Amino acid sequence: MAKESNILKMAKAAKQASRQLAVATTRDKNRALRLMAKMILAEKAFLLRENRKDIAAGEKAGLSRALLDRLLLTDSRIRGMAGCLKDTAKLPDPVDAVIKTFMRPNGLRISKLQSPVGVIGIIFESRPNVTSDCAGLCLKSGNACILKGGKEARYSNQAIFSILRRALVQTDIPVGAIQLISSTDRSAVYGMLKLNDYVDMIIPRGGEGLIRFVSQHSSIPVIKHYKGVCHIYISDDADLNMAHKICFNAKVQRPGVCNAMETMLVHKDVAARFLPGMIKDFQAAGVEVRGCPATRKIVKAGVKAARVSDWPEEYLDLILAVKVVGSVEEAIEHINTYGSGHSDAIITDNQKEAALFLKSVDSACVYVNASTRFTDGYEFGFGAEVGISTDKIHARGPMGLNELMTYKYVIHGTGQIRT
Amino acid sequence: MAKESNILKMAKAAKQASRQLAVATTRDKNRALRLMAKMILAEKAFLLRENRKDIAAGEKAGLSRALLDRLLLTDSRIRGMAGCLKDTAKLPDPVDAVIKTFMRPNGLRISKLQSPVGVIGIIFESRPNVTSDCAGLCLKSGNACILKGGKEARYSNQAIFSILRRALVQTDIPVGAIQLISSTDRSAVYGMLKLNDYVDMIIPRGGEGLIRFVSQHSSIPVIKHYKGVCHIYISDDADLNMAHKICFNAKVQRPGVCNAMETMLVHKDVAARFLPGMIKDFQAAGVEVRGCPATRKIVKAGVKAARVSDWPEEYLDLILAVKVVGSVEEAIEHINTYGSGHSDAIITDNQKEAALFLKSVDSACVYVNASTRFTDGYEFGFGAEVGISTDKIHARGPMGLNELMTYKYVIHGTGQIRT
Repeated sequence: MAKESNILKMAKAAKQASRQLAVATTRDKNRALRLMAKMILAEKAFLLRENRKDIAAGEKAGLSRALLDRLLLTDSRIRGMAGCLKDTAKLPDPVDAVIKTFMRPNGLRISKLQSPVGVIGIIFESRPNVTSDCAGLCLKSGNACILKGGKEARYSNQAIFSILRRALVQTDIPVGAIQLISSTDRSAVYGMLKLNDYVDMIIPRGGEGLIRFVSQHSSIPVIKHYKGVCHIYISDDADLNMAHKICFNAKVQRPGVCNAMETMLVHKDVAARFLPGMIKDFQAAGVEVRGCPATRKIVKAGVKAARVSDWPEEYLDLILAVKVVGSVEEAIEHINTYGSGHSDAIITDNQKEAALFLKSVDSACVYVNASTRFTDGYEFGFGAEVGISTDKIHARGPMGLNELMTYKYVIHGTGQIRT
Repeated sequence: MAKESNILKMAKAAKQASRQLAVATTRDKNRALRLMAKMILAEKAFLLRENRKDIAAGEKAGLSRALLDRLLLTDSRIRGMAGCLKDTAKLPDPVDAVIKTFMRPNGLRISKLQSPVGVIGIIFESRPNVTSDCAGLCLKSGNACILKGGKEARYSNQAIFSILRRALVQTDIPVGAIQLISSTDRSAVYGMLKLNDYVDMIIPRGGEGLIRFVSQHSSIPVIKHYKGVCHIYISDDADLNMAHKICFNAKVQRPGVCNAMETMLVHKDVAARFLPGMIKDFQAAGVEVRGCPATRKIVKAGVKAARVSDWPEEYLDLILAVKVVGSVEEAIEHINTYGSGHSDAIITDNQKEAALFLKSVDSACVYVNASTRFTDGYEFGFGAEVGISTDKIHARGPMGLNELMTYKYVIHGTGQIRT
């Protein structure tokens, strides 16, 4: 109860700050972002010290090496955090950007302008830099934010937050614009999910448990950042050499991220030519291959049998499911059934087939002849990103500054009345 | 249980139909819309007969004359329904419309295209024509729909639905694309709100009870079409003659709609000049005026005392709250506190003040020197509308075809991999 009332206080403060932030000048916002970057760099020793507490606790709790690595702050990662804030200062201000303007026959001039959403709650489980990255993006977009990081990063997040707040005190941006939920349990999150009057949007980034919890309990609109079960379909009209390079890149270059390929679909007419060399290279790179019966007929050595439970699986690891399909339609059906609406690609030289795939696959990003690994705010040129939305409402795919905005219609009249 | 399983069947059928509808040609969709219009006209006698059942039941249940009028179908209203379907056929197809295209330094060509959301559930309480209007807009935008009308219009809605389905049977559009929940109680709606795997968006149009029920129980994204507590603020820099005409129009021309003015805010320096004549004209038109103490000092005759409960009230009737304020900032604060984020106007000749009002008022439509009554899909030139969103996520203000769309990124490569 006491905890919920803290959340309520925090949300009210954020709402109030959001009104001031919505009308803040670009100059004041950019100055705040640069000062935040400067103080992050100046407080490096403090950040490293606090981060060591998280690392020590994590080691004691037996976190995996991969998780400990994500948790770790280093000189270069701290420079990266400051760099992201400075980059965000350089991005165009999205507030009041004109989406379109049109005149009506009665002389009304209607402009559709980008405007801040208000207060955005961001719940994440991963690296501490998300705290400053998201705080910066929200500030630039005129939104107040309430951040909730993972408990394994609590000392680091609290340290970053305290630096950002100390920076804001020296600016004209209200300090209430950035809030951090420091409680480490979910009841604090639960409390926030019910504050419709003060929080306008919730962005959960993380695993299945977190996403389900938030979706089920939130009465505030949620933009899910869920898993990436990405597919590449190799058509019988594919350049198999290109397909080989793209698939290897999409699986091996960085397997632990959401835009890595998890399932490879291969047309039956090219499977016998394509699969032996491809699977050999995957296996040489340490990839465990799980194949359908047709795949295992073609390549016997070391290919495990894929189960139905493999198709919707996000491995985030050097594991790949492989299925031979009879047609592009079957590939599309497989992707729409088992995929997560994130990123899917077709490798083909057949333009008609490519068009069908692009139109029919119901995913945020659909590719022809390129690696799914490009689904990323930086790669798309957005400058920075909050994450990748796997939702279809409001924002889909990489979420940068513009995706944190709503719009309003501004109508200029000269006395028009309705008749 | 049996009821929920019917809803599940319906939602699965809608999802399947939505995949086919998403790739349907413009020609096939327009042909279906024109045939639907033709059959609505051809079945006029049947529609009138079924509508009489609703009217009879409504009279027996003691519905108000206003409600009975909204329920009533007439020759001209049936022509209007057919006309809306024909107009929708004439609108540009929003599917695959290019929002923007950009090249990346690595040669990737990224296009952001409009694409259908999938399955849209629309829950409404009002006039039977909403059934065919919304079915048409969803069809044109490539979305399957599940419609649920008010129980008082059940015979009319069922009749319209049966005609639309009979039309679809004669086309290449899957009949499953239009679904109607014929059950008259809320448990059917409740069942739909949990079907995240099959329904992508819920649009509730109606009163507070319905909106609250849907928002609290839906795990599917909801775009609320909630109340309109619209304000007009008359600045001390206003053309008072213009202000008089606009306020009269916004209150009196059609008081029962969501974009009518409910509260008039007047700067203290012009209140004594503006209010007496304005209130006299309102009273002559049958408007009950509820004023703040300052208002009642200026105009004594027939002005009731406004209570705090008046400020957030949507009267939908010939009632008006009036408040004298000290500044544009106080007007903005009042609107952001008590308004519903629908439509608000300032009457002023001071451009700087207008800019502050437009930027600070957190509403879908903000006006300078025009009546709030223009917030409407037709008036905005959208051709037709599903309704007016009072939400900030995904769609805000009038929702036409484009607001029923999501987007996808289509990326054309030539073998690009990430390094």
